[in-house]
Amino acid sequence: MSGVYLDYNATAPIRPEAAHAVACALAIGGNPSSVHAAGRTARAAVEKARAEVAALVGSREGSVTFTSGGTEANALAIESAVAAGARRPLIGLAEHASVMESALATGLMVEGWPVRPDGTVDLDWLQQRLKAWSVEDGRPFAALSLANNETGVIQPVAEASRLMVEAGGWLHVDAVQAAGKIPVDFNALGADTLSLSGHKLGGPQGVGALVSGQRSTLSRRLHGGGQERGRRAGTENVPGIAGMGAAAAAALRDLDRFAAHAAWRDAAQARLVEAAGVTIVGEGAPRLPSVLCFATEGFEAQRQVMALDLDGVMVSAGAACSSGKVSASKVLIAMGFGPLAGSAIRVSGGWATSAEDWDRFAQVWLSAHARHQARRASAA
Amino acid sequence: MSGVYLDYNATAPIRPEAAHAVACALAIGGNPSSVHAAGRTARAAVEKARAEVAALVGSREGSVTFTSGGTEANALAIESAVAAGARRPLIGLAEHASVMESALATGLMVEGWPVRPDGTVDLDWLQQRLKAWSVEDGRPFAALSLANNETGVIQPVAEASRLMVEAGGWLHVDAVQAAGKIPVDFNALGADTLSLSGHKLGGPQGVGALVSGQRSTLSRRLHGGGQERGRRAGTENVPGIAGMGAAAAAALRDLDRFAAHAAWRDAAQARLVEAAGVTIVGEGAPRLPSVLCFATEGFEAQRQVMALDLDGVMVSAGAACSSGKVSASKVLIAMGFGPLAGSAIRVSGGWATSAEDWDRFAQVWLSAHARHQARRASAA
Repeated sequence: MSGVYLDYNATAPIRPEAAHAVACALAIGGNPSSVHAAGRTARAAVEKARAEVAALVGSREGSVTFTSGGTEANALAIESAVAAGARRPLIGLAEHASVMESALATGLMVEGWPVRPDGTVDLDWLQQRLKAWSVEDGRPFAALSLANNETGVIQPVAEASRLMVEAGGWLHVDAVQAAGKIPVDFNALGADTLSLSGHKLGGPQGVGALVSGQRSTLSRRLHGGGQERGRRAGTENVPGIAGMGAAAAAALRDLDRFAAHAAWRDAAQARLVEAAGVTIVGEGAPRLPSVLCFATEGFEAQRQVMALDLDGVMVSAGAACSSGKVSASKVLIAMGFGPLAGSAIRVSGGWATSAEDWDRFAQVWLSAHARHQARRASAA
Repeated sequence: MSGVYLDYNATAPIRPEAAHAVACALAIGGNPSSVHAAGRTARAAVEKARAEVAALVGSREGSVTFTSGGTEANALAIESAVAAGARRPLIGLAEHASVMESALATGLMVEGWPVRPDGTVDLDWLQQRLKAWSVEDGRPFAALSLANNETGVIQPVAEASRLMVEAGGWLHVDAVQAAGKIPVDFNALGADTLSLSGHKLGGPQGVGALVSGQRSTLSRRLHGGGQERGRRAGTENVPGIAGMGAAAAAALRDLDRFAAHAAWRDAAQARLVEAAGVTIVGEGAPRLPSVLCFATEGFEAQRQVMALDLDGVMVSAGAACSSGKVSASKVLIAMGFGPLAGSAIRVSGGWATSAEDWDRFAQVWLSAHARHQARRASAA
């Protein structure tokens, strides 16, 4: 891919280790459920990947259930919680659409868990809500991302899980965007379930995983064969799983170096603030080192994305899965941004990003902004 | 993979065209929902594959919804039919576990559609049942495979669809095993929905598709982003989809030559019948040219599979997804086989299979059978 790719929160380019693992797995040509030689080789590839994914989040191998992606992992967690007695899901208002819409699809009354202006969830609200919990609300259940997909804001998951555990509840953590970028320790977070996506780690698209702890019981949402210990029917995506495992191993190896991204991002951010007075989204909160979300009054987001694309710099306006739509980000609305949300773009780096990429982005964006200002001035 | 692989009904080795398409798609590194250059390239790869899959079954591109595999495609069809008013699913008793168990998971009363001794469904039963249909039974809905996964028996789908259409019903056709082996014409079959699996075609595992006609409306079972025209949320499995598309194109190209497999299979079958008096399953019915399912009294299926594996010939006892279990095939029980079902194995070729593979299988099996007979004689 030519150009500067800074849209890792939409999808990461494939890591070479993952591409290699996919190719090797494709060459096996066996079904992991088959007892013959080819089947056993395929089974070994799946189990190797399971260990690699478990290692990334510090969990046991048996806790990892492979899915077709983060969306299915989130759905599996939410439906499992409902099967375990949840009647009133509490969903962070800045959560990914797959979490909020999967919760709504259960048909239960979903409560929005408010978000503060810096993008973090309101823990006081959760504490008060749990105090007022009633029997009819069923088992307490809440879903929260470890890092937000649009803003990169890191949520106080461990604090939330303490409140949920005290209440005898179930906390689902969407770690799709955080994994591989900051340390993720399943046990330290105290999550009951935790979702991961292969392609956000630099693995292939079409594979994900749900990590589940000892307090949680997964119900299945795909029925048929006994794959994944009966938790998910369907022939395993052997190449996808192998690729995700290799990406997880590489991401874990690279994790120490990932913190350096913050300095590159901060340098670009400082240039934009100084030259164009942009508003940094989530500035007061801890953020992923690789994400910059900012709004520029009067400079429509899609216009920025297109201007950057023409100069070979790829970023996005909000979440990729809703990129087609021209509607303001629900995440930024939840944070109280109002009309300014329509001018926010997301710049997100990842495993192959360099300081030069951030530098090039800032240069191209400032140039596009200057042209935009000139057009506005001449039109006025 | 070394050895003779005759377990295509479990999974097919990857076609070179498909492996190449996967590698090319992995190199794109874009999310099809992103509007920038990388996103548009990824989108183009998905839409090219959609056209290739549609061409394999003679349907329109817009009728193809990609899923994570055949199991999800079957579940999507069944849940969509239920959302459209089905209250009493009629499921062929020889259907794949993903069809029967997805139907049972709806919580509705499922009726088993009987199978005749040759493995084909009983059309008279269907006709009588539809005559006795009552309002409380909701919209008539039936599911039937085009070719059975264990026996290769080809079902009278067009006849069944005529009965279903007359009754204003919905017929779901599981074409996972048939596609790429016999011509599949979605319109001529008269199906409302039709499921496909990538890896059974020689594409990668972890991808499938549901083809839907104009009488059917799909409801979604994965919620979040607006992918697949709102029919299935989640970032598209770009490498998997591209690989499935390439496999579909190659399968369509090779289809004429596939009929030749029947002669190889028949030659092996004749040797086994003559030398060991085996019972051919589904002999009286039309069968896929590549499948041989047979039973041998007193020669336990798992023992056969292991003996063949030791000599480098890979086959299976029943469906791969239940290979781990030691229980007789539901399919053969439905056909009335009784205890003989425990000695049935499935030999299934595919795109890379040669006459020599079938020859080698027959030779190795006859030798294993002779050793088994000798052991029995000396034990007696």
